[in-house]
Amino acid sequence: MKDVHAMTPTAGSLDLHRVGVTGVKKPLAIQRPDRVVTIGASFSVDVDLPASRKGSDLSRNAELLAELIDSTATAPVESLEAACHEIARELLMRHQYATQAQVEATGTYFRSRGISETRRSFEDYLLIASARASRDSNGGEPTVLRTIGAEAVGMTACPCAMETAREILEGEFPLLKDHSFDKFPIISHNQRNRTRLLFEVPPGVEVEVDRILDAIEAAQSSPTYAILKRRDEAQVVLNAHRNPKFVEDVMRDLLSGVVTRFADLPPETIVVAETVSEESIHKYDVTASHRITLGELRHPAAG
Amino acid sequence: MKDVHAMTPTAGSLDLHRVGVTGVKKPLAIQRPDRVVTIGASFSVDVDLPASRKGSDLSRNAELLAELIDSTATAPVESLEAACHEIARELLMRHQYATQAQVEATGTYFRSRGISETRRSFEDYLLIASARASRDSNGGEPTVLRTIGAEAVGMTACPCAMETAREILEGEFPLLKDHSFDKFPIISHNQRNRTRLLFEVPPGVEVEVDRILDAIEAAQSSPTYAILKRRDEAQVVLNAHRNPKFVEDVMRDLLSGVVTRFADLPPETIVVAETVSEESIHKYDVTASHRITLGELRHPAAG
Amino acid sequence: MKDVHAMTPTAGSLDLHRVGVTGVKKPLAIQRPDRVVTIGASFSVDVDLPASRKGSDLSRNAELLAELIDSTATAPVESLEAACHEIARELLMRHQYATQAQVEATGTYFRSRGISETRRSFEDYLLIASARASRDSNGGEPTVLRTIGAEAVGMTACPCAMETAREILEGEFPLLKDHSFDKFPIISHNQRNRTRLLFEVPPGVEVEVDRILDAIEAAQSSPTYAILKRRDEAQVVLNAHRNPKFVEDVMRDLLSGVVTRFADLPPETIVVAETVSEESIHKYDVTASHRITLGELRHPAAG
Amino acid sequence: MKDVHAMTPTAGSLDLHRVGVTGVKKPLAIQRPDRVVTIGASFSVDVDLPASRKGSDLSRNAELLAELIDSTATAPVESLEAACHEIARELLMRHQYATQAQVEATGTYFRSRGISETRRSFEDYLLIASARASRDSNGGEPTVLRTIGAEAVGMTACPCAMETAREILEGEFPLLKDHSFDKFPIISHNQRNRTRLLFEVPPGVEVEVDRILDAIEAAQSSPTYAILKRRDEAQVVLNAHRNPKFVEDVMRDLLSGVVTRFADLPPETIVVAETVSEESIHKYDVTASHRITLGELRHPAAG
Repeated sequence: MKDVHAMTPTAGSLDLHRVGVTGVKKPLAIQRPDRVVTIGASFSVDVDLPASRKGSDLSRNAELLAELIDSTATAPVESLEAACHEIARELLMRHQYATQAQVEATGTYFRSRGISETRRSFEDYLLIASARASRDSNGGEPTVLRTIGAEAVGMTACPCAMETAREILEGEFPLLKDHSFDKFPIISHNQRNRTRLLFEVPPGVEVEVDRILDAIEAAQSSPTYAILKRRDEAQVVLNAHRNPKFVEDVMRDLLSGVVTRFADLPPETIVVAETVSEESIHKYDVTASHRITLGELRHPAAG
Repeated sequence: MKDVHAMTPTAGSLDLHRVGVTGVKKPLAIQRPDRVVTIGASFSVDVDLPASRKGSDLSRNAELLAELIDSTATAPVESLEAACHEIARELLMRHQYATQAQVEATGTYFRSRGISETRRSFEDYLLIASARASRDSNGGEPTVLRTIGAEAVGMTACPCAMETAREILEGEFPLLKDHSFDKFPIISHNQRNRTRLLFEVPPGVEVEVDRILDAIEAAQSSPTYAILKRRDEAQVVLNAHRNPKFVEDVMRDLLSGVVTRFADLPPETIVVAETVSEESIHKYDVTASHRITLGELRHPAAG
Repeated sequence: MKDVHAMTPTAGSLDLHRVGVTGVKKPLAIQRPDRVVTIGASFSVDVDLPASRKGSDLSRNAELLAELIDSTATAPVESLEAACHEIARELLMRHQYATQAQVEATGTYFRSRGISETRRSFEDYLLIASARASRDSNGGEPTVLRTIGAEAVGMTACPCAMETAREILEGEFPLLKDHSFDKFPIISHNQRNRTRLLFEVPPGVEVEVDRILDAIEAAQSSPTYAILKRRDEAQVVLNAHRNPKFVEDVMRDLLSGVVTRFADLPPETIVVAETVSEESIHKYDVTASHRITLGELRHPAAG
Repeated sequence: MKDVHAMTPTAGSLDLHRVGVTGVKKPLAIQRPDRVVTIGASFSVDVDLPASRKGSDLSRNAELLAELIDSTATAPVESLEAACHEIARELLMRHQYATQAQVEATGTYFRSRGISETRRSFEDYLLIASARASRDSNGGEPTVLRTIGAEAVGMTACPCAMETAREILEGEFPLLKDHSFDKFPIISHNQRNRTRLLFEVPPGVEVEVDRILDAIEAAQSSPTYAILKRRDEAQVVLNAHRNPKFVEDVMRDLLSGVVTRFADLPPETIVVAETVSEESIHKYDVTASHRITLGELRHPAAG
């Protein structure tokens, strides 16, 4: 058969940066400390393509995903990012003309959570991972860079509306000015908040996803929970209103938390963070995002 | 040319209920009292197909939408539902084998809203309309039934967490039990709430969409606004917490509002309502839905 | 604590049809003949609410989902619809004021598929299930009605463009009129086709999901596959073009297939089907949908 | 009132890169050569925030969008990117503490298209624009960089399956090897293809969106159309099969087209392109993406 992909392209000689497949859905079995979990994951993989070739052999991508991911049903992998790493490395093996390979994946991760031991249930989080492999020009092992991240939904309470409401309420309810009410939680507006945190780590560095999720949930006004009986619900509300946060506060607390919680990560690690509050008083969302090395985060330049 | 659509189907004789096109996007110009507004609308249209025909002439649907909707650029229609009505009627003209035609449409509607005159801006709402035309077996005009509806985003504050929080706070802040605090608004959790209301009306009955949106916004704990300066924001928060509502309350207040606000509509009008609160304390949503005739709503059967 | 949900609603006495939670995501372990599969599923559950109660105890829904679904991690269920059935029954136990309970669920199902044994891989399908439980007024077991369904992506090739293209090509290539070309496959346009088939079955009736998926894939011009080497790819293309279908044909062939493949199901079973072809020559989709009892489908009324 | 936003943040001193609002929907009136068109657009705007401030005054963003966009109802702007430019500039005026402002917008654009004059209708395209304003440290006018782009849906036919199918068919239909069939179009699989092209232009450079859309549609196997009568449909199918393309070909032809069609743009213009084919023979998509300066594209480095 004629190999159309290997033919010289008719459109002139141009290297292409990224050619691949996207939205390939697969069940991925991951070995957790206590048990095997299967997550529904979606993969995008691509490689570069030299000017001399008309097409990339995309069926190899599908074969490779089938071989590496389907086999986890019997031999679970360590993590989503480990799977990405392995796929990226293997892409370079099978596309000999390529110099770079990229893999991006997301998956739904269920972990057991509860406001107390008797209220535990599985709650859904988003896992995010990627890997980029670069061919070694001397024929050695490719360099593979990984990104490891996650997204958690929690809640925020607005610190500004709370202050203004206090001023208005002090007018209507003069007793509120009594010093005993100094720490009394005042009404505000709350939002569903989605926050993601990713680490682009140097080769060989691992980050446990539960540590990432814990860092995110600690930065929101409060985590949220599937099961809340009446008193639990009030407790979450109280916690959130005693911990009011703009998205700006969520972002700063998240980044501060990264400094204290991830002291083991090397300074060249890149931290990428994004937080979105789905406003209850507006039809639109508010958001903050940041990208910085861990080194810069630990030692901000004097301004 | 061979007319493949008109051929006898090979798969055996079966009437098909609904065959059509979906997701046809068009700009629709509507004449409002004060000005012409152009909304981006999406249309789905279908007709039934007798057992004797292999295919429906779907290109006629696209032609018809082009003729009727594109021409509104120079000759605006009265409303989205009027456009649906006209399309449904015309579908029966062009598909002579059909006995029923259905049109469903949605569109983004911007109306000028504000917590005060100086804070006005365009906010987005969803218009929902449909029409079903049935051919008159005696060759007369087809009967066309219309649905007219809309969806608005507002906010809710939970009445239950508020009561429990009050009990807890009365323990921590005994002064709160002073009778002067009887109407003091206590913290709770708030949600972005999406509520839709539709009327399936008899022929000839019209409903103004702004009346529908007003009825929805009156049933939520508070409408939301694009522009809120500090004091406005606190005012919305106060209003919502003085008007706490479960989705159950939103639904009952919406349906009560329909009785008082739409006294002009005939009793055979069918009311369809749905409300969804995107919980700030949970990762999932809570919802209530209802379908009832206006007659039944006005005079509930004795239980 | 004050039970706000049990209070009399302020908005007047109105029974509410459906009150519940939606978008609750859970991992569900299902026992298949050969192994346990875990699917990521999304649940919506609701009950009715009498006029005398202000609110439905929604935290019970979350508790119940946690108890019934989370426990499948160690004790897998038989199917998604069996889980829905059990949840619906249990909803009526925990909401004593309710007379009806409804559960709707979807989940991603991966099954091993391939154009040949050496090309097998996991491909994604959508499972759809629901259950509605009605309380027995004499205190007996509730009646539970189940819906069992699935959606599969395949492809269609248009029979009409093929005929017209043949006529045009016969003008350009007179040799094409040679009788040896009678069964020669002519170019047309192809589409990604999504088709779903659901059965609303009487109590006690089961339908295996793989039978549903097989029926859908048999009705499309061709199934699609994740792994296709060069020759396989051409084979799928050939198959599809030798089996060209409008959405009307897919629907009729699907319904015919239901008659022959599901002879074991009782005549009162309701068949719901929908097919959507994402047109490659248009920016919009074409669709057909149908709803009929199996009895009527087996014995169409004389027209 | 206490200005909570201006307070010192409690979480330690950290400059934040991007803080803003997202998903603000507005009607935007644009003056086209022949008429005013109103597009439904969605805006995201953000600025940076110094370490000394707790919060960004987000209500100013909503006010500014209302002032600048709502006023286009009576005074249409030139383009979506001109609106972004003006918003970015104004953001720096209203957030005096900010050094950078960013605006991103998308909108649905309807243009009149047809395979012939008698088949014209409005078809939907996506407009994409952004602007980034950087404050001049000497108090001069800020520098504003614009991105101008669009996305169009068209179709592709696979060149590889076509070759393999020809080989198989030549076996079955030996007459096909006759030289008169050399240019005979052979069956393949076709896909709905979405391609986007963006230009990051230096200050003062404009690009007309219709030129961008024309460049995209010229690079696909064929544009698609809303209205196609039987013969038109076959013509589109013929054109696409005589012009078969991988996503790699679409990308190369698009980039070649950029070189020839946009000779007026300066070499420092950055070209960003992405193409996605929604495969009819697979459940997943294939894609290619590229980012390059126009200078490099015009004069590829010798390899």
